Amino acid sequence: MSKPHFKKIALIGIGLIGSSLARVIQREKLADHIAIATRSADTLKRAEELSLGDSYTTNSAEAVIDADLVIVSVPVGSSGIVARQIASSLKAGAIVTDVGSTKGSVIAQMQPELPEHVHFIPGHPIAGTEYSGPDAGFAELFVKRWCILTPLPDTDPAALQTLSDFWEACGAKLDIMEAQHHDLVLAIVSHLPHIIAYNIVGTASDLEKVTESEVIKYSASGFRDFTRLAASDPTMWRDVCLHNKDAILEMLGRFSEDLSSLQRAIRWGDGDALFDLFSRTRNIRRGIIDAGQEVDAPDFGRQAASASKSG
Amino acid sequence: MSKPHFKKIALIGIGLIGSSLARVIQREKLADHIAIATRSADTLKRAEELSLGDSYTTNSAEAVIDADLVIVSVPVGSSGIVARQIASSLKAGAIVTDVGSTKGSVIAQMQPELPEHVHFIPGHPIAGTEYSGPDAGFAELFVKRWCILTPLPDTDPAALQTLSDFWEACGAKLDIMEAQHHDLVLAIVSHLPHIIAYNIVGTASDLEKVTESEVIKYSASGFRDFTRLAASDPTMWRDVCLHNKDAILEMLGRFSEDLSSLQRAIRWGDGDALFDLFSRTRNIRRGIIDAGQEVDAPDFGRQAASASKSG
Repeated sequence: MSKPHFKKIALIGIGLIGSSLARVIQREKLADHIAIATRSADTLKRAEELSLGDSYTTNSAEAVIDADLVIVSVPVGSSGIVARQIASSLKAGAIVTDVGSTKGSVIAQMQPELPEHVHFIPGHPIAGTEYSGPDAGFAELFVKRWCILTPLPDTDPAALQTLSDFWEACGAKLDIMEAQHHDLVLAIVSHLPHIIAYNIVGTASDLEKVTESEVIKYSASGFRDFTRLAASDPTMWRDVCLHNKDAILEMLGRFSEDLSSLQRAIRWGDGDALFDLFSRTRNIRRGIIDAGQEVDAPDFGRQAASASKSG
Repeated sequence: MSKPHFKKIALIGIGLIGSSLARVIQREKLADHIAIATRSADTLKRAEELSLGDSYTTNSAEAVIDADLVIVSVPVGSSGIVARQIASSLKAGAIVTDVGSTKGSVIAQMQPELPEHVHFIPGHPIAGTEYSGPDAGFAELFVKRWCILTPLPDTDPAALQTLSDFWEACGAKLDIMEAQHHDLVLAIVSHLPHIIAYNIVGTASDLEKVTESEVIKYSASGFRDFTRLAASDPTMWRDVCLHNKDAILEMLGRFSEDLSSLQRAIRWGDGDALFDLFSRTRNIRRGIIDAGQEVDAPDFGRQAASASKSG
């Protein structure tokens, strides 16, 4: 990998991902100039207070002028609008990429808007936390995390290499995939877990016989793990659900089918079926820890944190 | 709270909970003698290697002789058998308690077996990790965690006070509840989350178009949070499902109903309904953090751990 350098990078959207990019671009000196654009004047002001860039504007078209690299980090439902706004201001030969959690829909929205003289390479860094906004970002967000690029059939190999180098300079590990396969993989590893988490927290809030304060009090017994995902940005996740509908509905269908079968085993006291399922799910976690995508400490290492606090 | 002292404590079962108790009893000097009993000779040998007690036996009846406090820490489906085994060896005035995740079933199994001259007070410390066995325990497991006692109507107040003092000496916060209400609360905060987690990991393992190695690789995007719960002890969770059936089926029914409604919103593109649900679930996490039942760090503080490893 050779460390890339850009004269100007334009960041459209300066939330968790955009502001983490700004921080790592500054730290690694990947650009002479960082232009920041966001729709909200308040968010822009906050980005400026945090000194995340070199220029600030609410006009994305203005931000992309002369940029070699444009990174769109907005909820996926806004990708098409952004593409339309910036299209005529883009420099010939510029690389335009995004960080959205769905790829088929982003391509369908952006590609028709963008001029032929730019390199459009959709991307998705598999990194995030439950916090959002410019204050939530940090330069290490992408370290050892996968970044999936879904280039189109006619993508220029040199531009693809440059963008790959950029993500590696941010600490990420690179993967190339077809957009449709990306959307299927993410539906199961990310979209379904978030939807399930939102749903169970909703179910718990609606009970008549168990109070919300009881749910909060005893949450350490399992529930609280779900609340982290269910605290994620609502706009982002609404857009993900609307823009990866087919893959999500497919996964939801399978999940519900399996859950009905599990429910039946509980109702009829089929202990062997329960034990079988509960045993085979252990290995996959071992795989995740071995792959370096998880810490090996019990309870996510949380126990140590709370024990030391209480000392 | 006055720090209690027992001449002899018998621990029946020496897994995660039993061995954590042994460690904190030793550290806080809560007993002159700790007797350890477990069915498995291998586990017993391991407990002895770890010096968790003062005497070791595979015969629970032998362990409880002359004990002032007997703590049964076995999968809830084995509670009745243990009660039958120890009944005739129990000292008059001894306190007998358990740590099971379901209380109605434990009472139904144990109470008829136990002699009238002991104080039977069912209990449940809301603490655990995804690891099991005598090596997994640690003395701080109960610190700042709730312990729920579900005394029977005729429970001796002095015995209840002694047991409460014991748990507080282990670092726990005490709560008193009716067994039936306990089972309903735990069904939503603990049992349903575990069942859902096991189910989604099962669904992900069964896909044809997404490989297990892809699921592992990209798990940081949400899925891995579920795998922690789904790595919990299969025997324990089989028993929980079989022994809190009614409350679990009630919660599963509500969850599935809510999920169908969410699925419909996705299918019909009802963004407002999705946004509403995804917004109202955020507050409950804030409540959990404010109640001291969760760390306030993004990503459970995991990010810091992995960033420091990579430094």
